[in-house]
Amino acid sequence: MKPAVGWIGTGVMGSSMAGHLVEAGFQVGVFTRSQGKAEALLSAGATWYDSPMSLAQHHDIVISIVGYPTDVEEIYLGELGLFSAVEDQRKCRIAIDMTTSQPALARALYEKGKDSGISFLDAPVSGGDVGAKNGTLSIMVGGDEDVFREVAPVFEVLGSQIQFQGSAGSGQHTKMVNQTIIASTMIGMCEGLVYARKAGLDPLTVLQSVSGGAAGSWSLSNLAPRVLKGDFDPGFFVEHFVKDMDIALDECEQMGIDLPGLTLARKLYEKVVSSGGEKLGTQALYSAVDELSHESVKRDNGDRG
Amino acid sequence: MKPAVGWIGTGVMGSSMAGHLVEAGFQVGVFTRSQGKAEALLSAGATWYDSPMSLAQHHDIVISIVGYPTDVEEIYLGELGLFSAVEDQRKCRIAIDMTTSQPALARALYEKGKDSGISFLDAPVSGGDVGAKNGTLSIMVGGDEDVFREVAPVFEVLGSQIQFQGSAGSGQHTKMVNQTIIASTMIGMCEGLVYARKAGLDPLTVLQSVSGGAAGSWSLSNLAPRVLKGDFDPGFFVEHFVKDMDIALDECEQMGIDLPGLTLARKLYEKVVSSGGEKLGTQALYSAVDELSHESVKRDNGDRG
Repeated sequence: MKPAVGWIGTGVMGSSMAGHLVEAGFQVGVFTRSQGKAEALLSAGATWYDSPMSLAQHHDIVISIVGYPTDVEEIYLGELGLFSAVEDQRKCRIAIDMTTSQPALARALYEKGKDSGISFLDAPVSGGDVGAKNGTLSIMVGGDEDVFREVAPVFEVLGSQIQFQGSAGSGQHTKMVNQTIIASTMIGMCEGLVYARKAGLDPLTVLQSVSGGAAGSWSLSNLAPRVLKGDFDPGFFVEHFVKDMDIALDECEQMGIDLPGLTLARKLYEKVVSSGGEKLGTQALYSAVDELSHESVKRDNGDRG
Repeated sequence: MKPAVGWIGTGVMGSSMAGHLVEAGFQVGVFTRSQGKAEALLSAGATWYDSPMSLAQHHDIVISIVGYPTDVEEIYLGELGLFSAVEDQRKCRIAIDMTTSQPALARALYEKGKDSGISFLDAPVSGGDVGAKNGTLSIMVGGDEDVFREVAPVFEVLGSQIQFQGSAGSGQHTKMVNQTIIASTMIGMCEGLVYARKAGLDPLTVLQSVSGGAAGSWSLSNLAPRVLKGDFDPGFFVEHFVKDMDIALDECEQMGIDLPGLTLARKLYEKVVSSGGEKLGTQALYSAVDELSHESVKRDNGDRG
């Protein structure tokens, strides 16, 4: 028999993911901050529960995917939190947080879970709304490997690239590697486009020359064409990427490592945020890089005056 | 009848490229600084000439691919240079420089060529030794479009992605876009690997999670595995990439634009060069990024002491 799955968080990612579980025949219970956002899931066959605690009382596995580490803390450690269910009234043995969050918080929840008899996995994802919709997410998992094996059938409904990465926090660390790589790759993509335009080239023709070779990347193929169309709608929100970079930079500080590209990206995205772009897509970085160049021209003109 | 093609430069790129022309049935003449390096071509059927000028006297098209802009100047403007052939003793009507070189030099050679009745194209390539060997280079062309059309059959023997990018210098500018994008993408790749190692992850398992998604790039798929094997052999030499970044940064200064990612990459590669890595492959950037982190740890320890 399939395990009963409690689901917390019905944003753009969570809705699609929980929907796949309902379709795959899992018994799904759902809780989220505003019940309205769960309606599609409820009419598809999921059942409403009014707290993480009540989800834990009635489901074998509970999965969360929410916004920020503070939301994760509330869900697990709050008064009506997952870990607050009294043991003899609790069905939940395994809890999985798929939010992109702090490795240290993941380790803390793993330990707290152990104390209350719940195995905790950190399992953030990449692949965005499209990956969530198509069930092709990459899922990066930290925690105990035997627990990972037990819930693998659930992950397989949600993603196509599923990797156990090591002890508690390793899933989050892997996601931080992912975001660190993206950060500088985005700078390169934006700087290439700024250069192309200033040099008087046709950027679309330039992309034909450069996208398929050593300069090629997911960002260049998927986001550069949007920039050139002036389309800054979010695939992935600036504000979420900034949160992720802040977590990664915090971890770097704790590990005593210095990543200048990541630091630079964070600084450039600050410009995007301070000009009101936090709800735009990450490709809005282009405007900040382009703006720098205008400032540079102004500075030069000032020097001459 | 196929045009006779004179070829200048038999490095790792030029040898393969000229070889394809011989195989395709072009009559190929060759000149290079050290005749020994042309031997494979000569035994394949190419003919030796003792200067760019003599190549120009006997071939319809002359193509150069050498190391540095100073080499390009010598080939075109030197005493025995291509443009020094007296007009009535000259067969050459079209000259093509495929070296990665300065856009300004390309424009100057285009103008000089016009004065002496030779049409000049700048046509740098990307795709490296493998692309040259397999005839799958990306060729980015600047100059007059009718001349580009005339020599397209020659380009088609050498590459698989052939784009006319605009007026003289546009090929070089496009290559600078390519290198600018690569510069920051390389930083992202190296920082991701440094983070993964310091966080105690298994970097190969991390690559399985991150290579196929939004963090994906040619660098990540092709160079990160080499870094993890400790293989820093050159696909593309550090010293050549540094030359390219210097050209791009010069152009940025002239255009009045500020590209902080490119500037950072140039600074990091300086560390590679100053520790003797100029003949390594560009993936040697990893060592410089890793070294930064050791310095950061030392600094922190110093602060505590």
